[in-house]
Amino acid sequence: MSGEWRAVTIAGVGLIGGSFALALRQAGFKGKIIGVSSPATVAAALDRGVIDQALPLAEAAAQSDVIYLAQPIERILETLSAIDGMVRPGTLITDAGSTKRAIVERARETIHRGRFVGGHPMAGKEVRGVEAAEADLFRTRPYVLTAPDPELERWIEKIGARIVKLEAAEHDRLVALVSHLPQLLSTALASLIAGHPEAARVAGPAAADLTRLARSPYDIWRDIFSTNATEIDGVLAGAIAQLQTLRENLLSQPEMQATFARAAEAASQLRQT
Amino acid sequence: MSGEWRAVTIAGVGLIGGSFALALRQAGFKGKIIGVSSPATVAAALDRGVIDQALPLAEAAAQSDVIYLAQPIERILETLSAIDGMVRPGTLITDAGSTKRAIVERARETIHRGRFVGGHPMAGKEVRGVEAAEADLFRTRPYVLTAPDPELERWIEKIGARIVKLEAAEHDRLVALVSHLPQLLSTALASLIAGHPEAARVAGPAAADLTRLARSPYDIWRDIFSTNATEIDGVLAGAIAQLQTLRENLLSQPEMQATFARAAEAASQLRQT
Repeated sequence: MSGEWRAVTIAGVGLIGGSFALALRQAGFKGKIIGVSSPATVAAALDRGVIDQALPLAEAAAQSDVIYLAQPIERILETLSAIDGMVRPGTLITDAGSTKRAIVERARETIHRGRFVGGHPMAGKEVRGVEAAEADLFRTRPYVLTAPDPELERWIEKIGARIVKLEAAEHDRLVALVSHLPQLLSTALASLIAGHPEAARVAGPAAADLTRLARSPYDIWRDIFSTNATEIDGVLAGAIAQLQTLRENLLSQPEMQATFARAAEAASQLRQT
Repeated sequence: MSGEWRAVTIAGVGLIGGSFALALRQAGFKGKIIGVSSPATVAAALDRGVIDQALPLAEAAAQSDVIYLAQPIERILETLSAIDGMVRPGTLITDAGSTKRAIVERARETIHRGRFVGGHPMAGKEVRGVEAAEADLFRTRPYVLTAPDPELERWIEKIGARIVKLEAAEHDRLVALVSHLPQLLSTALASLIAGHPEAARVAGPAAADLTRLARSPYDIWRDIFSTNATEIDGVLAGAIAQLQTLRENLLSQPEMQATFARAAEAASQLRQT
């Protein structure tokens, strides 16, 4: 079954789940949007008109064509272990978790009546919660899918995101480099600066840029670290080796010039994609 | 002599020198502004009305109350070795170099007729040259001074900058942490990403933030590295140790939670200063 969607359940109506609901609606989705979340969150989501109805998971799942899991990763894993018996045959189950290998593996073991497609919208904001949800959050952003689904792909294009098809393991390898390593570099820098509060007196835009991510709360990172530890260990080792090389070459002009040129080129390329 | 300025020479009329000239003018400076730079630069600076007159250094120095050195660091060092015989007794010589210890040491050896005050405006843009100069570049930014001078401090306040008085060695120690290390972390990350061009497909705002600095050209960094090598080596060693600790603690929740909290607090503090 990959037909038209009539009812969509959003499990976890926070920034991402709420934004997906608003984006669907803005893109012309006419069906029902059911929210599954904590009482406070569904109250806020109903209040903002983000969802049409709030239900417990089993009731929501029984009447939905699509289940969109926008919970923390460990909750997604738990939901995947519980949901297959609740859905109608052929129901599409997809997720928005920041790592994909552990989630796709769990779904392979547990989802049989439903069909699972892993997803990762590369979007976010510093503010969390359904209050911060917005219909344009995914616009122009990459949206990774680990398997094909024509109707899901149609809606992702309609909400303005850019589909990127990747194997789960390849996704986790790449985000370790472009998302998890930046977070840890930022945390490491801010942590060093914490030991020198007088440095704030001379901090300019460079320190501001590099420490913005360091304000992210640990609770969203805990599950990312636990489900992508091997890849993250690898990129941290790579970063340490690279910094050691910079240390050794600090006064070697041809080597530093070549590294700066290579880095500048990659930084510019990132901005053109 | 610390009286009213009648004529100011800007040596190196690029982004910083040109902005200082424009800022002085906007703040009500009525005297003459003389530019010392390459023929192409002084032509552009005269054309934009950034300077009133272009002269060779010796002629400019002989008639100025202030010499503002906004050249690359190695050029500032050379100018300091040559200029003392050109100035009138008591002439204020100040600079805008990004490191201070080597410059202040050179001035201590060479400046006797003039008086030297080291300076470092913590401001910049990604675009360089007098074409990018702007009167508001220093507004709200820290402006480090290594020695007191009432008239210089009055003008720095008038152009909207925030004076921070620091010994040269302390300045170099702090900027190694909040300016030079961020640059090298950004260069290291972009350099790692350069080896994985396919990662650009999933790069989001985190990678964009952390690689912005990596586009800086090496030629402005070469002199910073050569004049602050010891401090930079120290902060690189500190960053490597911190990343090694993150690697070891990646799955240790209490340790990671504490590090994230400490980093988030420091990142927030930086933004309040």
